[in-house]
Amino acid sequence: MQDLIILGIDPGTIVMGFGLIKIIKNNIELIYLDQLLLKKYSNHHLKLKIIFEKTINIIDIYHPNELAIESNFMGKNVQSMIKIIQAQGVAIAAGLYKNIIINEYSPRKIKMAITGNGNASKEQISKMLKTLLNINSNFLKKKKIDSTDGLATAVCHYLNRKNITNNKKYKNWNSFVKQNINRIILK
Amino acid sequence: MQDLIILGIDPGTIVMGFGLIKIIKNNIELIYLDQLLLKKYSNHHLKLKIIFEKTINIIDIYHPNELAIESNFMGKNVQSMIKIIQAQGVAIAAGLYKNIIINEYSPRKIKMAITGNGNASKEQISKMLKTLLNINSNFLKKKKIDSTDGLATAVCHYLNRKNITNNKKYKNWNSFVKQNINRIILK
Repeated sequence: MQDLIILGIDPGTIVMGFGLIKIIKNNIELIYLDQLLLKKYSNHHLKLKIIFEKTINIIDIYHPNELAIESNFMGKNVQSMIKIIQAQGVAIAAGLYKNIIINEYSPRKIKMAITGNGNASKEQISKMLKTLLNINSNFLKKKKIDSTDGLATAVCHYLNRKNITNNKKYKNWNSFVKQNINRIILK
Repeated sequence: MQDLIILGIDPGTIVMGFGLIKIIKNNIELIYLDQLLLKKYSNHHLKLKIIFEKTINIIDIYHPNELAIESNFMGKNVQSMIKIIQAQGVAIAAGLYKNIIINEYSPRKIKMAITGNGNASKEQISKMLKTLLNINSNFLKKKKIDSTDGLATAVCHYLNRKNITNNKKYKNWNSFVKQNINRIILK
């Protein structure tokens, strides 16, 4: 079976976070963690261009099979929200251009997938990522929080994907009974 | 001087409108008018992929120098708004990928540029486009309104651009006086 490589992106117009993981026999391995600092560019369209090029560049180097992107638009003023959604749209376009499947996750869903708590703190997420990926505890500290958010999005997609695969679908009640014979209680 | 070709886009997730104009000696010539029907695709990311490919395709065929896109997000529910901004972001990404300058205009600004009235009706816009572009009155009727909105965005950008060029900037008061000698009233 081909290795699964997932690119996780946390979109933003000030900082954009990228995290790449590789799944090897159910183990999650971190292969890339980076952030794109966009504050220095005053022109919004130039930012979008840089986001598109950076995303294409990562895809060309690491060949991810799937892309997961955070949809975090709420609690912002309308103008900032529009700019962040455009930034997200541009990153999605880069993935689509390279024929990669796109998946969107809300911050709540990401927190829930990684810690089991939809309101988990950044520290809890970071701690769980260290455990799940077996990373040295100093490694993530050196990286800014935004690249960690990109990584969290990638890990969330893997866990979510795994869940879907595990939750086998049954054609009918008979096929469920046949495949779950140990769950049947005989009176 | 190189001909100026402007691609105007009216983004949407149900219909997306495209209009291309060429400026020849201050005359606006219509060279392409089309709409992308997206209603039939139920998957949102597939829609985005089709939008990206269609935009790239038009750029590759007609080589526009500049791109103008409508920013019409208000008055919609949040979920529809997010999807339309993503669609807009994807079209912007296609332009950026092809190194084309992007310009965004609000519906009000487009109506204002074409009719002088920010609240003009679709019919007024359509009538003015026919006059400005010297198009047969039956031509636009055959095309759906969304492609006309794309065309209106392109024309708005040309008129706006012309205004900026006409409003020459002067280094100082002396240079203004020198270039506007006919406007000086001598007592």
